[in-house]
Amino acid sequence: MELDKTIKGRRSIRKYQNKNIPDSIIEELLDLARHAPSSMNGQPWHFVVIKSDKTKNQITEIKNKYSPPEKRTYKADFLQNASVIIVVCVDKQKSFGREIENGILATANIMLGAYSRGLGSVYMSAYSKDEPEVSEEIRQILGIPQNFDPIAIIPLGYPDEISEPKNLRPLEEIIHYEKF
Amino acid sequence: MELDKTIKGRRSIRKYQNKNIPDSIIEELLDLARHAPSSMNGQPWHFVVIKSDKTKNQITEIKNKYSPPEKRTYKADFLQNASVIIVVCVDKQKSFGREIENGILATANIMLGAYSRGLGSVYMSAYSKDEPEVSEEIRQILGIPQNFDPIAIIPLGYPDEISEPKNLRPLEEIIHYEKF
Repeated sequence: MELDKTIKGRRSIRKYQNKNIPDSIIEELLDLARHAPSSMNGQPWHFVVIKSDKTKNQITEIKNKYSPPEKRTYKADFLQNASVIIVVCVDKQKSFGREIENGILATANIMLGAYSRGLGSVYMSAYSKDEPEVSEEIRQILGIPQNFDPIAIIPLGYPDEISEPKNLRPLEEIIHYEKF
Repeated sequence: MELDKTIKGRRSIRKYQNKNIPDSIIEELLDLARHAPSSMNGQPWHFVVIKSDKTKNQITEIKNKYSPPEKRTYKADFLQNASVIIVVCVDKQKSFGREIENGILATANIMLGAYSRGLGSVYMSAYSKDEPEVSEEIRQILGIPQNFDPIAIIPLGYPDEISEPKNLRPLEEIIHYEKF
């Protein structure tokens, strides 16, 4: 799919059809992910691909447990219906202090690649600044070593919902020339 | 340009031709940026578009001054030759604790959109976890209010260098099924 069309058409999708995603597509998405820029070209990414219902349920529980009050309208239960969940991790030793940046830039590619292949996804964080327990519990479930940080959780599935068009803030409100 | 081709072809570019970028292209890039996902659909983005040589020099000085020792091979001097520098900011009140995520996801769209239009760019951070002076000085130069965080600095220009192909880590080393 054409880039601009992909970026403008992509929406967060939280309802998925009960339909498998071929491994070859998952690998295409992770191939796109590893083409992201990274600090000092450290390429610190590791990806855990989850299909097991048990693990999906465990991740759902963690996300619900640590959801901040203002976000509780978005329960994580839908994660259980994702065909696949990808957890994006980074090697701290290869991240040069930019773990989050590196992780997110790869995640952006996964979400765009997913949409261009007819898949739905939504960005979810795998850590919380204020609650180190979030990433610690995810580490334990997935066997992620201490020198790797989980950054993002990306559920994937064929969409079972149609998103309304989004109202975007007008460009003239958010573009500033020379000074804010 | 097609999405996969854009993602796979994009490289970090630090040498630019002395050639102006039309404002209409900058606006196209910021239009793509505002289509990024954001926490609770807060759309917290603001963009400062810099063409003034004085401001480019000030940002170069800040980046060089606070560059960590291991990254000093990449001096920021090239920023002065960028046709335009975009500073991506986020409104903290609209970010729901995810300032960095929101800022980076918009920045990813800018960089991909730039490459698909024949422009070069490179990701640079506008803050440092350990040194709040970095974002504070950027705030001062650009008149960014305290309730906004500068997240990324994106120089843009028509490329004056050809990047060697990157050696990527093999997929089988970085994909893990079910467990890390």
